[in-house]
Amino acid sequence: MKEVMAFIRTNKVNRTKEALANAGFPAFSCRPCLGRGKKSLDATVLNYIMEAGELPVSNAGEAFTETARLIPKRFFSLVLDDEQVDLAVKTIINVNQTGNPGDGKIFVIPVQETYKVRTGENIL
Amino acid sequence: MKEVMAFIRTNKVNRTKEALANAGFPAFSCRPCLGRGKKSLDATVLNYIMEAGELPVSNAGEAFTETARLIPKRFFSLVLDDEQVDLAVKTIINVNQTGNPGDGKIFVIPVQETYKVRTGENIL
Amino acid sequence: MKEVMAFIRTNKVNRTKEALANAGFPAFSCRPCLGRGKKSLDATVLNYIMEAGELPVSNAGEAFTETARLIPKRFFSLVLDDEQVDLAVKTIINVNQTGNPGDGKIFVIPVQETYKVRTGENIL
Repeated sequence: MKEVMAFIRTNKVNRTKEALANAGFPAFSCRPCLGRGKKSLDATVLNYIMEAGELPVSNAGEAFTETARLIPKRFFSLVLDDEQVDLAVKTIINVNQTGNPGDGKIFVIPVQETYKVRTGENIL
Repeated sequence: MKEVMAFIRTNKVNRTKEALANAGFPAFSCRPCLGRGKKSLDATVLNYIMEAGELPVSNAGEAFTETARLIPKRFFSLVLDDEQVDLAVKTIINVNQTGNPGDGKIFVIPVQETYKVRTGENIL
Repeated sequence: MKEVMAFIRTNKVNRTKEALANAGFPAFSCRPCLGRGKKSLDATVLNYIMEAGELPVSNAGEAFTETARLIPKRFFSLVLDDEQVDLAVKTIINVNQTGNPGDGKIFVIPVQETYKVRTGENIL
């Protein structure tokens, strides 16, 4: 099994949840986080962030001068069978791709064991 | 070494902390998260959730109509020697198993390197 | 690629962000968490925690009697090329090493696939 970890925009959470459920992946967890990618916060990037409502407009000046400013993001985690990973990754990209900086990243990590607490069984 | 990641009910946090400490695992981290498993939210599942106090009763109707509703959960993370993983997993299952949907999941992930910041040493 | 996961003191977040950016690692995520290491909370350890402002002074008595007390920490996550891991780990240790208990831990985990959502490309 593998863990699919996705960092996405906060305003894409509901559409991502729906798309994953519709694609057959109803089980996942979601947490708020702060994050940023490699692109520095120039005027264009900052404009995308403000348009997407990811930072309050009152923070614009501050964010512009502080280049390492972290932006509120959402972290999704799904643990899936190996052969489900491709579809899950495509589903997340489909919903989250705007073509602008800040669309997010997806990482795939190996999982060695999986237990269902309710039954105690190891569901490899 | 391995990371044991457990998603459990919010009302099981204190007993899980105690049980892990008593079993010889005092070092871990804990974060709130939202999550759900594969079971859809039918009346029975929703009943368990309300009984466990995992959602306010005022959200019952809303949760019932929104099938992909995420439930507040707690995420535990422990990094352990390989031979400690079985006992840690059993300890978490013991404390968290109610037999009802929503008891949680445990995932085991490989860890390649571990550093203690205080000394800078690589504690493999 | 690998994920570098670091659990550090809350009062080290800004210096860690700066040091990582200066070392060429501008892309990471950061989340609050609760955690503790293997050392039990004796008077000396508790003193470090209070001095660092990691717990309000009003919680001192409570923390002292509850040995498994979790302390607010920050979790950093960076996904890097294999050959960047050593420098990132050293950078985090440099900024966070006070020599006192609670300085934190760093774990390195294998990452199998990495996708940039904006372009959809797999950036191995």
